[in-house]
Order: sequence, then C-alpha cells, then structure tokens
Amino acid sequence: MFDTQSANFDVQGLSVALIQAELGRREGGIPIGSALISPLDPDVGTEEVPASGRIYIHGHGRNQRLQKSSAILHAEMDALEKAGRLAPEVYKKATMFTTLRFASYVHKCMCTGAILLYGIPRVVIGENTNFKGEEDLLRSRGVEVVVLDNQRCKELMREFIRYHPEEWDEDVGGSKETSARAS
Amino acid sequence: MFDTQSANFDVQGLSVALIQAELGRREGGIPIGSALISPLDPDVGTEEVPASGRIYIHGHGRNQRLQKSSAILHAEMDALEKAGRLAPEVYKKATMFTTLRFASYVHKCMCTGAILLYGIPRVVIGENTNFKGEEDLLRSRGVEVVVLDNQRCKELMREFIRYHPEEWDEDVGGSKETSARAS
Ligand SMILES: [Ca+2]
Ligand SMILES: [Ca+2]
Ligand SMILES: [Zn+2]
Ligand SMILES: [Zn+2]
Repeated sequence: MFDTQSANFDVQGLSVALIQAELGRREGGIPIGSALISPLDPDVGTEEVPASGRIYIHGHGRNQRLQKSSAILHAEMDALEKAGRLAPEVYKKATMFTTLRFASYVHKCMCTGAILLYGIPRVVIGENTNFKGEEDLLRSRGVEVVVLDNQRCKELMREFIRYHPEEWDEDVGGSKETSARAS
Repeated sequence: MFDTQSANFDVQGLSVALIQAELGRREGGIPIGSALISPLDPDVGTEEVPASGRIYIHGHGRNQRLQKSSAILHAEMDALEKAGRLAPEVYKKATMFTTLRFASYVHKCMCTGAILLYGIPRVVIGENTNFKGEEDLLRSRGVEVVVLDNQRCKELMREFIRYHPEEWDEDVGGSKETSARAS
C-alpha cells in the first residue's frame, strides 16, 4: 500500500488519519485522527536491517474525549496507545500523521511530549490554519513538520467547533483563548 | 481525610501515589504511582464556590507499560485518565502527586505536556535523586514543584532498574543515557 520513497507517502498516510477523524465525527466525537507509520517491523531488534521495503501502520486512532470520557486520548495518544509497546528503534524511523495541528505542537500538550519522548523524527499535519501563530516546539527540537492543506480536515474541525465550542475548549485545557482563535 | 491547609497534605497525598507504586511493583510493573487531588468537586461549574473544605482524589494510577503494554500510561497519565473528564477549573486548583521525578518534568514527556495543557499549578514528587541535572520545564512555566525525600520511592525505583534495565530504558524513550544515569 505504502512506499516511503513515493511522493504520495504523506498523502496516503494522512488518509489513514482522516478515516479515523471521519469515524470520530460519526461517533459524535471531536473529529481529529492520527496514525503512526514506519518502515520498521513492530518488534524489530537493534540488530535487524530495516530495509524490508514494507510499511507498517503501527497504530491509528482518534480523539476519544467524548466517546471514552478520556482526558488523555488526543488522537496522537490514541494512535500511540493502539500501537502498544514498540521497540525504541521503531519510533525513531516513524512518521506521526495527524489531521489537525493545534495545541499538540506547542509545549502545552501531551502529544508534543510523547513525540519528543519517543524521538519520532517526522510529523505530517492535515491543516494548520487555526494555529499559525504558535511557537513550534517540535521544529525547534529538530522534528521535521510537514503541513498539508487538506480541505476536509479543515471542514471537520470548523463544523465541530461551531456546534460544540465548550467541548473543544475542554479538550484544549480550558483556554478560551485557543478555542476563540480556532473558531 | 485530607486538609489542604495541613502541613501533612503533601505527605498524605504522596502516600496515595505510593500505594499505587507498591501495587505496580506487586504486579511486576514499573513501580511509579501518581494521584490527582484537588479541593474542587469533579463536576464543579465556574459559578460554584470551591470552599467546601473537602478534598477529592480525582484519580490515582500507576505506570502501566508492562501490565497493559501501554506506550502512554506513565503514572501521571494513568491518574489523569482514571480521573476522566473534569471541568477545566478543577485542574487549575489541583496538585499532581508522583513518586518519581524523571523525564516527566523536562520537555520530553507527555506528562509534562498534560500538566501544562490542563494548567495544573502544583506538583509534589517523592524523590528526584536520579534526575537532578535536568532542565525543569514545569518550574520555568510557573508550576510549583515540591520535592519530598521519600526513601521508599527511591528504593522501589532502584530495585526495579537494577533488575529490569531494558524495560526502564523503553519507558524513557530508549535513551540509554537516562537509564544509565538513573541506575
Ligand atoms: Ca522483527
Ligand atoms: Ca458540582
Ligand atoms: Zn494533544
Ligand atoms: Zn511521563
């Protein structure tokens, strides 16, 4: 399905995250999806040669605040959790895909901390219209951040925020400021 | 049980976290425990007066890497998740207790991001012998960080790291450096 060398890798990976966002929308959740994808086998050992040519979707997930009353399952965290325990090397060759860039990529989110903890070197984001002004902690720490301009990712969030401003505010830690900027 | 005005509040809160660390040890897990405690009712509204005098243990949890094959359930994250959805105001009056300070309080951990996301203003830590040299992101962001000197918290980690250096390394993102320093 995937080829890391292909120009379409980012678009294909984002589509996996977007399917999760659409699922979240249908469940009545906050419509943000993520996927953790890498060329390494989940249980790769340090001694293994990683050049099998295969691509592994280790985990894909979506924001679970409303569905599971979760305080920690932002989409990226759900994808990491669904991936389970992976060898440290796997993360270090992985790309994290996510449909929305928001608080995640400043210092104020568990997602940022998790990406830095595991040394994930690359993040692909569906849209960032709502958070352009923010400090980019990931980039400042050497993570490659690619921003696509996906209309569906934008629509999903615009629709959600219009009808559920309070739930969105709760998800970003109760900072009215952020929710106002995102709407 | 608790009184935020009492000099024993920090010691009592830490004991809740320590019970979780001991549970984790008996399960064969990484022996780190946490608790999220505040004087506000879990579903407090902004209009409510918080001075009921009661103290609520919203969530207590422990590192679940080995028990649940979890990549995200550091003790603090488990406590936040067990607390479930809380009104934003509740976090802003809460104290996070944890038996061990490690990567959590530098930029490289989801726990740090979560504490900053929710605006938790105060953290009480059982021991920090192993990570003294690290940059303290929480303090630099205005979080009050209290470090107790609890022998049992230290013993639990020393014992675990001695017998399970690889699992510990995995939990801190595969940075051999950290595990070496902590041992
Ligand atoms: Ca393998
Ligand atoms: Ca209430
Ligand atoms: Zn996040
Ligand atoms: Zn942590």
